[in-house]
Amino acid sequence: MMRDAMTQTTPAQARAPRIRLGMVGGGQGAFIGAVHRIAARIDDQYDLVAGCFSSTPEKSAASAAELGVPRAYGDFAEMAMHEARRKNGIEAVAIVTPNHMHAPVAREFLKRGIHVICDKPLTATLSEAKKLAKSAEGSDALFVLTHNYTGYPMIRQARAMIAAGDLGEIRLVQVEYAQDWLAEPLEQSGNKQAGWRTDPAKTGAGGATGDIGTHAFNLAGFVTGLELESLAADLQSFVPGRLVDDNGHVLLRYKGGARGMLWCSQVASGCENALRLRVYGTKAGIEWSQEDPNYLWVTPLGQPRYRLSRGGAGTGPDAARVTRVPAGHPEGYLEGFANIYAEAARAILARREGAAPDPAVTFPGLKEGLEGVAFVDACVRSSKRNGAWVSLAL
Amino acid sequence: MMRDAMTQTTPAQARAPRIRLGMVGGGQGAFIGAVHRIAARIDDQYDLVAGCFSSTPEKSAASAAELGVPRAYGDFAEMAMHEARRKNGIEAVAIVTPNHMHAPVAREFLKRGIHVICDKPLTATLSEAKKLAKSAEGSDALFVLTHNYTGYPMIRQARAMIAAGDLGEIRLVQVEYAQDWLAEPLEQSGNKQAGWRTDPAKTGAGGATGDIGTHAFNLAGFVTGLELESLAADLQSFVPGRLVDDNGHVLLRYKGGARGMLWCSQVASGCENALRLRVYGTKAGIEWSQEDPNYLWVTPLGQPRYRLSRGGAGTGPDAARVTRVPAGHPEGYLEGFANIYAEAARAILARREGAAPDPAVTFPGLKEGLEGVAFVDACVRSSKRNGAWVSLAL
Amino acid sequence: MMRDAMTQTTPAQARAPRIRLGMVGGGQGAFIGAVHRIAARIDDQYDLVAGCFSSTPEKSAASAAELGVPRAYGDFAEMAMHEARRKNGIEAVAIVTPNHMHAPVAREFLKRGIHVICDKPLTATLSEAKKLAKSAEGSDALFVLTHNYTGYPMIRQARAMIAAGDLGEIRLVQVEYAQDWLAEPLEQSGNKQAGWRTDPAKTGAGGATGDIGTHAFNLAGFVTGLELESLAADLQSFVPGRLVDDNGHVLLRYKGGARGMLWCSQVASGCENALRLRVYGTKAGIEWSQEDPNYLWVTPLGQPRYRLSRGGAGTGPDAARVTRVPAGHPEGYLEGFANIYAEAARAILARREGAAPDPAVTFPGLKEGLEGVAFVDACVRSSKRNGAWVSLAL
Amino acid sequence: MMRDAMTQTTPAQARAPRIRLGMVGGGQGAFIGAVHRIAARIDDQYDLVAGCFSSTPEKSAASAAELGVPRAYGDFAEMAMHEARRKNGIEAVAIVTPNHMHAPVAREFLKRGIHVICDKPLTATLSEAKKLAKSAEGSDALFVLTHNYTGYPMIRQARAMIAAGDLGEIRLVQVEYAQDWLAEPLEQSGNKQAGWRTDPAKTGAGGATGDIGTHAFNLAGFVTGLELESLAADLQSFVPGRLVDDNGHVLLRYKGGARGMLWCSQVASGCENALRLRVYGTKAGIEWSQEDPNYLWVTPLGQPRYRLSRGGAGTGPDAARVTRVPAGHPEGYLEGFANIYAEAARAILARREGAAPDPAVTFPGLKEGLEGVAFVDACVRSSKRNGAWVSLAL
Repeated sequence: MMRDAMTQTTPAQARAPRIRLGMVGGGQGAFIGAVHRIAARIDDQYDLVAGCFSSTPEKSAASAAELGVPRAYGDFAEMAMHEARRKNGIEAVAIVTPNHMHAPVAREFLKRGIHVICDKPLTATLSEAKKLAKSAEGSDALFVLTHNYTGYPMIRQARAMIAAGDLGEIRLVQVEYAQDWLAEPLEQSGNKQAGWRTDPAKTGAGGATGDIGTHAFNLAGFVTGLELESLAADLQSFVPGRLVDDNGHVLLRYKGGARGMLWCSQVASGCENALRLRVYGTKAGIEWSQEDPNYLWVTPLGQPRYRLSRGGAGTGPDAARVTRVPAGHPEGYLEGFANIYAEAARAILARREGAAPDPAVTFPGLKEGLEGVAFVDACVRSSKRNGAWVSLAL
Repeated sequence: MMRDAMTQTTPAQARAPRIRLGMVGGGQGAFIGAVHRIAARIDDQYDLVAGCFSSTPEKSAASAAELGVPRAYGDFAEMAMHEARRKNGIEAVAIVTPNHMHAPVAREFLKRGIHVICDKPLTATLSEAKKLAKSAEGSDALFVLTHNYTGYPMIRQARAMIAAGDLGEIRLVQVEYAQDWLAEPLEQSGNKQAGWRTDPAKTGAGGATGDIGTHAFNLAGFVTGLELESLAADLQSFVPGRLVDDNGHVLLRYKGGARGMLWCSQVASGCENALRLRVYGTKAGIEWSQEDPNYLWVTPLGQPRYRLSRGGAGTGPDAARVTRVPAGHPEGYLEGFANIYAEAARAILARREGAAPDPAVTFPGLKEGLEGVAFVDACVRSSKRNGAWVSLAL
Repeated sequence: MMRDAMTQTTPAQARAPRIRLGMVGGGQGAFIGAVHRIAARIDDQYDLVAGCFSSTPEKSAASAAELGVPRAYGDFAEMAMHEARRKNGIEAVAIVTPNHMHAPVAREFLKRGIHVICDKPLTATLSEAKKLAKSAEGSDALFVLTHNYTGYPMIRQARAMIAAGDLGEIRLVQVEYAQDWLAEPLEQSGNKQAGWRTDPAKTGAGGATGDIGTHAFNLAGFVTGLELESLAADLQSFVPGRLVDDNGHVLLRYKGGARGMLWCSQVASGCENALRLRVYGTKAGIEWSQEDPNYLWVTPLGQPRYRLSRGGAGTGPDAARVTRVPAGHPEGYLEGFANIYAEAARAILARREGAAPDPAVTFPGLKEGLEGVAFVDACVRSSKRNGAWVSLAL
Repeated sequence: MMRDAMTQTTPAQARAPRIRLGMVGGGQGAFIGAVHRIAARIDDQYDLVAGCFSSTPEKSAASAAELGVPRAYGDFAEMAMHEARRKNGIEAVAIVTPNHMHAPVAREFLKRGIHVICDKPLTATLSEAKKLAKSAEGSDALFVLTHNYTGYPMIRQARAMIAAGDLGEIRLVQVEYAQDWLAEPLEQSGNKQAGWRTDPAKTGAGGATGDIGTHAFNLAGFVTGLELESLAADLQSFVPGRLVDDNGHVLLRYKGGARGMLWCSQVASGCENALRLRVYGTKAGIEWSQEDPNYLWVTPLGQPRYRLSRGGAGTGPDAARVTRVPAGHPEGYLEGFANIYAEAARAILARREGAAPDPAVTFPGLKEGLEGVAFVDACVRSSKRNGAWVSLAL
């Protein structure tokens, strides 16, 4: 119990009829599907009522039974069609397939006015991404991209502080995401997760750049509000036989003069999910790490550095609205992910009620998705040209 | 994504019909009720279908509407009676009232065979606790006490390591729980949480000792398996006018020769929820902090200290079965709390199916509840006798 | 290089003729003697010109040759006599023998007006300590006790902040010093350091309490300025056959109402020199660890905690005058120790020049030495009486 | 006191007649000169007996008086000549002037057979560096470059582990050195340190790259043993009016396939001396930070990460020989610096005695100096060509 627990607003207190949710992908052996389901449950604003969990009707039905989901489909197009026609069909669908399937699936639902909550990256290729963006323009449905790290309260806090000018003019961005789970050729011994993530046909032209570099790039942009001018990349495939990059070193030039570095790696032995962001401006800096997400370090020029604690003194409304428990009681990855679902729910419910969108509601969407795929594309192009500076081909 | 994400077993994969859950307490402005509800939802094994959220029917109904709970009651005894009679009435009830109400509420449900999931401490007084224990003996229902910190995966890991002898013979226990939210006389300015927690009639004879000292004491016992022989306590009420202790210093003597210190405080300026456990044996020690719960430090004698990461290399099955996401993706307070609900669900479903209890299922119950209330009682007795050594009056 | 390196005052810039120093103890195989010699050298204010390094003339001469020290003695009394008579004899002597020799050695030099810099604890017994204090009264010489942890700049900073009222009224002191080097019966296999430190005839009645508990007790007093009212102790000898305590749990009551806990241990597996001090007042707390000594955490009530960095923004003159290099360039144990020597040099040079003592010069002396030995005595008395509250027998 | 304090070999125990040392530079207001003097004193193997501390005889004499140095010179060439002729003249000289003076001063002493201990970077320009290297070839004297961070024990430990293959094949190097002391235009308001460090005529073509980038580059090479193949740099001068870079982003390609990133900055608000090195190989990684230098993290693939503590279990002889105090008693910047002086002393004494050099003695010299200046030159060339890949022009 903390001093101001009383003043915490939990999303559940703004109760509304639950959103009927479907899911495509996320059957047995999938990782991210389970995460989406928990994220959707935490604040009690969704009911998962339909799913096309696998590519065969049998497997899909088995997953549905196991999950207690009433309606199972073996084909996503069929699912979209049926659900759209059905009274009380789904209002939103979560897409948690490998990357190359995001676009075809999303299009089916968008064109029927069903909101899409899609895992990142947006698509496997930039041309797909652009096509998807075009088709989305013709839809009334919302498109939410689960760049889940933007859901962490202290990331919201950092964004708000930078927007308010607390850091002065931003000069430097240092962002990195280091893992080690692909330090050995896992894809050559049948690991399903490693398999599609290292297969260019499914994951796209970028490996580590697509899987986690996009998170790092997105997070830096989300927090700073800066737009990229150009980048220079040196990508590597350290593991013999690997078809996509497993490590990337990228120099960044932002519009307005800020400069940065981005490192993403899936071969950094001993690193788990070491996503770390540091931003330095003329007045102060901020430092944040995903593995210790409840704290934001603020490093003013000429004053002692201090530590903002989620839910604690000195944090503002942007962090508070995505906070559930008091300071000192850590929240984690699932709560951060759930915040994307909570924000999506706010937007979806506003739509349902015909209300104007709440300007405070914030989640990544098509724009961020396009930028992410364009980031991977630019990294690959630059690296092929020996690190030439290139712009995003948006 | 981590190397062995594929092998993670998430509770949702062992799907079963949801447990019908009720709640007593937890209306508007309550903190811990909301936590229990999220904890019950995370693994999708409960449906909250009834509640006596407040002491008046109107308020209770308003809370139920807000929460989307179909059945509301203004009286817990009535709720117990109706639900017990009802086809598809609740199978379990969560009790989240102030401490002095735990016993009367629990008895009503236990005597009707409804499982109880009760917040801690068990009761406000030791005599109540004993009476409750006696009435529970006559019931077939399960009694689960939410000493939620025992749900943290790395606490399970520590417990397993000590049980396996990895630390050698335990010599020392250092446990502390420091907060600051009562550093000022909050109860004198209408704060509801502070009000009942500093009112001996509602909270019991111990203030900080009851509210958080019991957590520290329970955690030390849970991890080490040691039983207390005696304690010597020096309790203080630093804030003028406060009716219960807000700080406690306690020396511990365990059976078998281990010795320890326990500090609990609600006036340690700048501390949030600093629950920290350190245990040292003849071969090694362990160090853990609730504010950084995904890591367990192991400190062997004569070897470098190492850091076990939840979900990561070197962790065993006791931690894995209460783990949802891979290493480097932090889990937090809500997941730890949810693990108590998940363990309770396993036990409840086994009962429902008439199956033998799974010996791996672990949660605190009446024994721990009694010990906790006896701990507070002993602290108060010892402190009144100027720190004399006393035993638990069990 | 840091922003304000230019304004750092290094002790060497206030050059004066070096102080002629002698040493008793500190021959081959000694640990603390070497530390004293480095500490005396760092700021270039002492010349080590004479020594009685061992108990035989041959060994003492060998050590002197090895160290490049011109004059060697085999008997400390002879050394005191000769050096006192000699033109350009030593002005100060460092005593780095086992504890039971501190008093006889110190008396010989004090009575001849030679300043004493003595390792802690002051003596092995309280009666010796009192006798020494009495004989010191009759001497013009200075007495410096190397409670070296008081030399750390951030400890000076903490002391200054508390004296200035920044923490409000002090309520709580948590201090501990944990090691593991005596977790096994090292003294039974010929280890010289372990041998005398566990021999009551040489070390005194307290083992861990005397060797490191005195440091913890002294540090708490130095920083807070609080005086002890009484203590209650539970001491243990965990290692079979050990003749002195190797672990101590102590409750503290300070005059004015502050309360505390002190833990000292030499059997905490995996701990190195984990001296840690936390103090909490009505307005703020401070937290400091000897193993990470360049930082002082300040934890205000109701504001974010911040980290003061030695040499950095927000630190005051008390820290700055014992600081040599800029923030971010760590200083350590030897520099902290050297600060005691530097402060002693300032006092000795003032004496030499007949100047009034600089009130800013701060070092532990006889008063602190007496309190330390009285602390050990009180712990032993209390523990024998099963943790009864006792006062220091000063 | 620690378990194995007895077995610590302190440099002072291998006593030899002190080396007669001179100094050029390091008068009043200088920072690094004072550091060199303390470093030379800690192990008692040097006597500072002559100096040309400033550019005028008066100032130089004043500094000498203040420092207690017997012989003062106003001209370094005169000093070299006189000292070389003199019986018991200096055997070694420390050069602590601004960068552009290193070469002319060094040449004067080298050509007279006086050993040189020179601050880094070697020179302000690459052509000077090459000329200096050539003149050094004709000298019998030693040349020691104080890349002091290579003196830290845990850096020696890391180097030994990598040389032994503990990390497997090195894939990745991440090195950075972030400060903030030039975040504002300090050089425009008369700060002497900032003045020469931002004046291309004195500091060379690189600002941050020369002052601290060289440290980072050297440290990475020292620890990994890798040789650079090429680099691509993006340098910035963020502060308006600044004539040299104050921030640099550099991509690294090492021979053999390892890749890296180097960041150096003097405008990263809130950073003090954040020199940090991370190296990842096929089997394990290491992580080290200069601001917390007593610990080396080892991060094996597929095992828990562990922390090696200076002086503690698991550290080897390369760290032990530059270690003075036991584990848990921190050493810092000055001890690391002193280790360069201690290693130099070993080499100088071996020369004096005509002994073969001890292969364990390790310190940076002309080769590292040349590489450092070539690194700055390459960064500047690459950045002017918009980040083209260039090699060191050695």
